[in-house]
Amino acid sequence: MNQTAIARSWVEHANGHRDFPLQNLPLGIFSRPGQAPRCGVAIGDAILDLEAALAAGVFEGAAKAAVEATRGGALNAFFALGRPARVALRERLQVLLGEHSEHRAVLQAALHPAGECTLHLPARVGDYTDFYVGIEHAKNVGKLFRPDNPLLPNYKHVPIGYHGRASTLRPSGTDVRRPKGQTLPAGQTEPSFGPCARLDYELELGIWIGQGNDMGQPIAIGDAAEHVAGFCLLNDWSARDIQAWEYQPLGPFLSKSFITSVSPWVVTAEALEPFRCAQPARPEGDPQPLSYLLDKRDQAGGAFDIELEVLLLTERMRDEGLPAHRLTLSNTRSMYWTVAQMVAHHSVNGCQLQAGDLFGSGTLSGAVPGSFGSLLEITEGGKQPVQLASGEVRTFLEDGDEIILRARCVRDGVASIGFGECRGTVVGAN
Amino acid sequence: MNQTAIARSWVEHANGHRDFPLQNLPLGIFSRPGQAPRCGVAIGDAILDLEAALAAGVFEGAAKAAVEATRGGALNAFFALGRPARVALRERLQVLLGEHSEHRAVLQAALHPAGECTLHLPARVGDYTDFYVGIEHAKNVGKLFRPDNPLLPNYKHVPIGYHGRASTLRPSGTDVRRPKGQTLPAGQTEPSFGPCARLDYELELGIWIGQGNDMGQPIAIGDAAEHVAGFCLLNDWSARDIQAWEYQPLGPFLSKSFITSVSPWVVTAEALEPFRCAQPARPEGDPQPLSYLLDKRDQAGGAFDIELEVLLLTERMRDEGLPAHRLTLSNTRSMYWTVAQMVAHHSVNGCQLQAGDLFGSGTLSGAVPGSFGSLLEITEGGKQPVQLASGEVRTFLEDGDEIILRARCVRDGVASIGFGECRGTVVGAN
Repeated sequence: MNQTAIARSWVEHANGHRDFPLQNLPLGIFSRPGQAPRCGVAIGDAILDLEAALAAGVFEGAAKAAVEATRGGALNAFFALGRPARVALRERLQVLLGEHSEHRAVLQAALHPAGECTLHLPARVGDYTDFYVGIEHAKNVGKLFRPDNPLLPNYKHVPIGYHGRASTLRPSGTDVRRPKGQTLPAGQTEPSFGPCARLDYELELGIWIGQGNDMGQPIAIGDAAEHVAGFCLLNDWSARDIQAWEYQPLGPFLSKSFITSVSPWVVTAEALEPFRCAQPARPEGDPQPLSYLLDKRDQAGGAFDIELEVLLLTERMRDEGLPAHRLTLSNTRSMYWTVAQMVAHHSVNGCQLQAGDLFGSGTLSGAVPGSFGSLLEITEGGKQPVQLASGEVRTFLEDGDEIILRARCVRDGVASIGFGECRGTVVGAN
Repeated sequence: MNQTAIARSWVEHANGHRDFPLQNLPLGIFSRPGQAPRCGVAIGDAILDLEAALAAGVFEGAAKAAVEATRGGALNAFFALGRPARVALRERLQVLLGEHSEHRAVLQAALHPAGECTLHLPARVGDYTDFYVGIEHAKNVGKLFRPDNPLLPNYKHVPIGYHGRASTLRPSGTDVRRPKGQTLPAGQTEPSFGPCARLDYELELGIWIGQGNDMGQPIAIGDAAEHVAGFCLLNDWSARDIQAWEYQPLGPFLSKSFITSVSPWVVTAEALEPFRCAQPARPEGDPQPLSYLLDKRDQAGGAFDIELEVLLLTERMRDEGLPAHRLTLSNTRSMYWTVAQMVAHHSVNGCQLQAGDLFGSGTLSGAVPGSFGSLLEITEGGKQPVQLASGEVRTFLEDGDEIILRARCVRDGVASIGFGECRGTVVGAN
């Protein structure tokens, strides 16, 4: 990597930071003890308080208007401004936080150690939609039910998605209460009620919608990328036993709605620009997407190369000081549909998207063991336990288990960036 | 009916009004030309402007606090106050609008002809959930696919529901743009894209959530009715051809999310109290609900006796002055699960409900022809056209068709009340 080409920050711990160097600058909503939530920017291990920076007079013009739109404890209004506002803010922040900054002294006073701050959801989510674009996950799960024909006939034509629950979206770090519900125990004909016995994680990319559309006015595929504000990690916690019993004929409901965790930093579309890649070629024989899903620019650069990782830390591992166990190493290149295709499809019927809506990608598994994005896949439905260095085994999650999602973008010649973490610890049912 | 027992209003057109006599007093959000939306109460053919009445000084104590919570153009804060606030407001309004009112003069000035007002959605909907509790609908639809086994094994154990789209909820009177989407034409193996050819209505009861719950704290069945603020009519417009192709494995998505229409008046739980009835006995052999869904008081009086009606008015019928064609005459007694059971089930996994959330009941069909709540059922999937007095036939809806939902509660000795209408006219695809 050509380090000389990579701009440096006067915030020394940002240079070479795993997640938040000067090239990332993700936005989030944070608070300090006793203070109302406000917008901040992650830089190294610190958070720049944008409101304090605004008060210090370091913004003007479009960047100032952008910062003003981040007020109020949620980024919806900022997202609605679209790309020009994000770019204006980003360019100004790169100057302000760059090594040649003329405002270092006043900005230093607006920096807070991230460890002293609480992070919140970055926006008020109007609607949350969960897609199913991870084709290897769809195949792996399909194989459990239909070994000879894992993918349903619509999969390669339709970016499958369904509506999720917005009220239980929570930021990383929120405990995951084991849900109770109805299940049909193996071999029984009558359901039982009790705590979920097959609690799982799902590794997903989260997509924050920027500018929306009016009802009845679809977003064309060529415009769709412009409607995306940024990205996060998303854990679509799933109660597999509840899901199996409830999901016919209308889809998952209580098996998912108890909580969905998201990483708090919005990694902007601009920060991810260097990590765009061509949509992987469809295998020989796969159908051509219908024209409303087809755009040359999207095919050429609408996918992302983002490494994804899932770690498990049990209570015993924490107590014994053992390192977390890596469950999954995967990549967003396994998405069969691009984010632009998801946006175009979602709105093609006239459905209104709004700034601050959230999409989940669906579980992003790879094709080989080690890359599966859920325990359902890793353990083949609970049949192949995972062995841990602590001497424990897992088929599904137990109380005290913590799941940690991470993401990282690496490419020669540019600074690597990451997403921060999406963590959640399972606590016992009430 | 013993008319002498029925209290009268000084608003003369309210007495004996089909929908809005003194005994109903539903709340809604209305606006007059050039004015911001505000809360009103339907009384006969008029709307009482609650803000103007408040300014006139006719409220005090709990009723005043209740009216203050209705400000801001949405009823969420009022819903969150729960039953005591609704009861205080209702009791005061029945005095103020009753024939012995001492405030007739000032209130007269706060009354507006309903026809001169625009009605809006009554609340900002955080999450919208569509249930499937109309068992006859489930059977009728199931028969089209599985003649020998129409109900899935979970139906009589689980109040089936799924998440719907909140952003495209619209008040009665909003045009319904025919959606475009992917369909798999009969006999084809590759999908096509174009305007929906099988556009349908679904007759549903809408349920407005009052007080919510914290995440992780289920609402017990015995408390569940207390969390319901009121009711409306809901048309879950459905694109059957899009639905058939997209819904496996995660449920309906774009086939529903283009628009969902709701009647604008919130008929309160208190106004419906006289029309409660016992939950219809489960047929011999049906399973007992699991204990988290079972409550004696709910079994004894948790169902509702509400007549439901659907009318179709085509463009030609409008042009020729023909009366609307009745497609459906049904009743909420066909609900296999009570509203309390829906609330208890929805939250049993810890899912958070919030004031202003909306539930749909699912299509409320009866068991016999004439009572089916969708064209899918009436026409047996498009095979048996409906003959209209205009000489037209319909299998599914055509551009220019208007669907009108109505509901009415009738019981000896008490004033009948209604819900007003939920209307929508189909307009051609873009």
